[in-house]
Amino acid sequence: MTHIQERLHHWQGVPFTKVSIDDAFWRPRLEVLKKVTLTTCLMKCEETGRISNFAKAGGLIEGKFEGIYFNDSDVYKVLEGVAYALMTDRDSELEAEADRIIELIAAAQEPDGYLCAYYTLEAPESKWTDMEKHEMYNGGHLIEAAVAYFEATGKRHLLDVACKMADHYDHVFGPDKRHWVEGHEEIELALVKLYRITKEERYWKLALWLLEERGHGHGVGAIWDKKEWGPAYCQDDVPVRSIEKVTGHAVRAMYLYTAMADVVHASGDPTYVDALHRVWRHTVERNMYLTGGIGPSHHNEGFTHDYDLPNESAYCETCAAIAMVFWNHRMNMLFGDSKYADIVEREMYNGALAGISLSGDKFFYVNPLASKGDHHRVPWFDTSCCPTNLARFLPSIGQYVYAQTDKGIAVNQYINSEAEFLVRDGVSVKLNQKTQYPWNGKIELTVDAEKSSYFSIRMRVPDWCRGYNVQVGGEKISGLEALTEQGYVVLSRNWSQGDTIVLELDMPVEIVRAKQEVQENRGRIAIQRGPIVYCMEQADHAELSYDEYTFSAGERLYVDHMPELLGGVTVLRGKDGNGKPFQFIPYYAWDNREPGFMQVWIREKEEPGLYSY
Amino acid sequence: MTHIQERLHHWQGVPFTKVSIDDAFWRPRLEVLKKVTLTTCLMKCEETGRISNFAKAGGLIEGKFEGIYFNDSDVYKVLEGVAYALMTDRDSELEAEADRIIELIAAAQEPDGYLCAYYTLEAPESKWTDMEKHEMYNGGHLIEAAVAYFEATGKRHLLDVACKMADHYDHVFGPDKRHWVEGHEEIELALVKLYRITKEERYWKLALWLLEERGHGHGVGAIWDKKEWGPAYCQDDVPVRSIEKVTGHAVRAMYLYTAMADVVHASGDPTYVDALHRVWRHTVERNMYLTGGIGPSHHNEGFTHDYDLPNESAYCETCAAIAMVFWNHRMNMLFGDSKYADIVEREMYNGALAGISLSGDKFFYVNPLASKGDHHRVPWFDTSCCPTNLARFLPSIGQYVYAQTDKGIAVNQYINSEAEFLVRDGVSVKLNQKTQYPWNGKIELTVDAEKSSYFSIRMRVPDWCRGYNVQVGGEKISGLEALTEQGYVVLSRNWSQGDTIVLELDMPVEIVRAKQEVQENRGRIAIQRGPIVYCMEQADHAELSYDEYTFSAGERLYVDHMPELLGGVTVLRGKDGNGKPFQFIPYYAWDNREPGFMQVWIREKEEPGLYSY
Repeated sequence: MTHIQERLHHWQGVPFTKVSIDDAFWRPRLEVLKKVTLTTCLMKCEETGRISNFAKAGGLIEGKFEGIYFNDSDVYKVLEGVAYALMTDRDSELEAEADRIIELIAAAQEPDGYLCAYYTLEAPESKWTDMEKHEMYNGGHLIEAAVAYFEATGKRHLLDVACKMADHYDHVFGPDKRHWVEGHEEIELALVKLYRITKEERYWKLALWLLEERGHGHGVGAIWDKKEWGPAYCQDDVPVRSIEKVTGHAVRAMYLYTAMADVVHASGDPTYVDALHRVWRHTVERNMYLTGGIGPSHHNEGFTHDYDLPNESAYCETCAAIAMVFWNHRMNMLFGDSKYADIVEREMYNGALAGISLSGDKFFYVNPLASKGDHHRVPWFDTSCCPTNLARFLPSIGQYVYAQTDKGIAVNQYINSEAEFLVRDGVSVKLNQKTQYPWNGKIELTVDAEKSSYFSIRMRVPDWCRGYNVQVGGEKISGLEALTEQGYVVLSRNWSQGDTIVLELDMPVEIVRAKQEVQENRGRIAIQRGPIVYCMEQADHAELSYDEYTFSAGERLYVDHMPELLGGVTVLRGKDGNGKPFQFIPYYAWDNREPGFMQVWIREKEEPGLYSY
Repeated sequence: MTHIQERLHHWQGVPFTKVSIDDAFWRPRLEVLKKVTLTTCLMKCEETGRISNFAKAGGLIEGKFEGIYFNDSDVYKVLEGVAYALMTDRDSELEAEADRIIELIAAAQEPDGYLCAYYTLEAPESKWTDMEKHEMYNGGHLIEAAVAYFEATGKRHLLDVACKMADHYDHVFGPDKRHWVEGHEEIELALVKLYRITKEERYWKLALWLLEERGHGHGVGAIWDKKEWGPAYCQDDVPVRSIEKVTGHAVRAMYLYTAMADVVHASGDPTYVDALHRVWRHTVERNMYLTGGIGPSHHNEGFTHDYDLPNESAYCETCAAIAMVFWNHRMNMLFGDSKYADIVEREMYNGALAGISLSGDKFFYVNPLASKGDHHRVPWFDTSCCPTNLARFLPSIGQYVYAQTDKGIAVNQYINSEAEFLVRDGVSVKLNQKTQYPWNGKIELTVDAEKSSYFSIRMRVPDWCRGYNVQVGGEKISGLEALTEQGYVVLSRNWSQGDTIVLELDMPVEIVRAKQEVQENRGRIAIQRGPIVYCMEQADHAELSYDEYTFSAGERLYVDHMPELLGGVTVLRGKDGNGKPFQFIPYYAWDNREPGFMQVWIREKEEPGLYSY
């Protein structure tokens, strides 16, 4: 084992099937997801020909390909979401519908394993000629859906289709075979998943080979030739080991780093480790919005130059926020540092969650941090990656709550839930987590161990929390144990049935200022409380115009939990210097009432600080 | 009533005799004050000839004046403290000792009412020749002691002495009589007190005349001629109505503004109001330390230039911190704005409280915000104004808890206590206040009204608190009522027996940065939690040298209440980037263990912020 490998933590995720969520914040969202979002997405896939494309490609019905060449992927992503929903709550009707669609997908697969409805129907002679046409991107999502559906139902049909397709890739591409730089990363992380479930090494090796293909001039296709985009658009400008900066299309970049983290988890390759550290810092230190949003530009759906974080014109694709979760969750598993789980949290409660309406049937593709009033969620898009990404992200949110460490358990997210793990010597442990997070910073854990057993429980102290306190069995902990290690309080002891932990996180209202380099936010402040980023919406300020309001950092705010408002939110209310009341609501909940302006970064009312100090 | 007068609130203080303190923080301090501090001070006054000076001046014993010409005032201040202690807890032994001393004081009064042991004994021919010789300063403290002792015991003897002395002043000085600019203000506020208890208008008028004497070139004495001091040293540079800036000796300035506020309370004089507002802003915005300390310079025991706030060489006389309480309490009564009560709190828990050891028998005169390890509390000083000021300040601390407003009650300080008031129509109301302040931000009030009655209860939301919440009768309040008015939540309703209010103040650990103009603190941060300013002491960091430590603003801190440490303190513990543990303790509690360095402002470990935003 190398020096670098020793630094790796190799934590394991705890599948959401082991985490039963019974949470005032998340439970209603999961219900809506299953009852509304999944059926809406399936219906839209049907209506827009995304599903019948497979039937046509399989020769079951007549017709031309409808829509865009990457539309297969939406069906796969909804199927993945359906699979996750079925895992926690079997539903024969939903499953029958999934089975029906799977039959169509299987029918669309060509005898050699090739599967991409667009090429089969429209341009069979042009397969594998333009690397930006998402053939393997589609394939990657098929694999993810297949793995999920197999895990949910035990049914192998879609998994067999996926393996046959992956084997086809492996047959056509690889060392001494054809080069391939998939224009939209996704296949790499999917192949790792396929390897994990099938234990077939060739899938893992193919993923690694695909990563290594990048940055050597092998890319071919229209996008590579476009001067204003070029190879950086799809991260083909430098070999992955040499990555210094986040570039190009945001979702593609995140999927690439996710796959790199997956690969490192097995290989420990220090050059990958260093590249991941470099690009992570470059992303969060210079290119991430307060909401966790990334990719400011509509032009390339991605990155521009450092600190370019415009609010009103922010792109911040919902998929990119979700992809940040994927990547940061892997980084947390690799390095055992809570700063990655902090980002997961930031996306969960802000950047990603804003993408879906409270009703579950309207979506943002683009998530600006300011709007004059003309930006609204809609039921579907021609390119509908975001709704379908939410459809698979939300039902699997439970997987981010816990991780299995080398010495026990890490508590990464605070959600009212019951979870089950095996710790050392195969002892089964249940953890009951009680909390009113994200509105309150108190978390109570009760340990229910099969038998008294020595292991460690790590609890994350989030980035936004400066002061905290921990009690075990009603007694505060003391000494070095109370202090954090890589952002966690680590409680190592012999845990017995009924042991309790109470973590109290200070959850004050915070005034946030951007780095000086972020020109857009100079003279502006934003409000955060706990993990929740706040915004101001016209629905609460009929009399105001866009960007008219100025806010003084010194104003006191009434922390007001409103169970009836916007699905239950804690709002922050105050009165400005002129006695006018104002109100901030959580950013994720905006555009769920009358249309109007919205702003996260408010112009600061410049007032000389009262005290000199 | 003029426009200006309408802006005045004319709140009334609630005497501490109406506030029974039963508080984990303050109760032990009040006990120590009575058992240790008062007796120590009396003993020291005896030992140093301060008491026998009166006997000598009265011809009861032979001998020369011992000590400094203002030493009479220390005896008066201890007597005032004794009176306050007797008010809440009659003690015949202590009262007998006070009566004995009062007899000596009375004996020292000359037939015309003049009373100043130094002049009587040493220079009877030089009376009233040097305005800086504290003749009226001594007299002011006599008046304060006399008023207090009369209120405590009903005994008139000392009050008669005081009246006779004040009448003598009134006889000698005034319009068309002699000019007088008392070099050390104090007499003015004392005369207002005397007016309030005797209802004799001439005392109030004399106070006003003395204020008006300043700034017209009437000052005579050595101090006026000293170039490096001049009239500004004792606030004789401009007429009080024209004051723009805080100048000169800090305690003198504060006593002057206190008297001005007293006078405005009755007169509503808009030129005084404006002057007070100007000088208050100038004091806190440019010339106040984080601890509430004022007056950076040893040279003049006072102010220098704006933003001159050195830490290690800070003077910050304990008396000046106490005087800030006097002034700000009056300002709060006048203007009904909580920002003045915020300063009272800042001094109560920091600047003033640091002046006394936990044992109650050692004192700081000078309160630096950093020390290499050579600054320690001592039992007494040649000029011992600070111990004797603490002796009268602490037992009367209950007076800052409540105020009687025009429409009800204001809760200014949070101390576990029971208090009694009359509200509208003479209805008697008891308020029971339960809190673990200053360590916890939750305050529970229970109303015990004689009969159901409509009035308002104002609760201060402190300057350090951005987020708060209020429940009345277990239900959170809503609408505009929840929002602060001049820093108070105002709850107006029909209050009935057993009604409850719960105020929850966010009390997070805060990183404090000074204004850019404060050169000394550039690149430094300090820590505050609730009203408590923290410091780092060598006693917790044996391995460190002075100013060696650098602290990163991003460190997480374990909020650790240690009931056994330093009389029960909440410490803040963390681990720095190198894994080394560190600890902050409340500033007021420093120098109660092994000697060593202390620092409030720690060098900031400059780290690029993690997020761009």
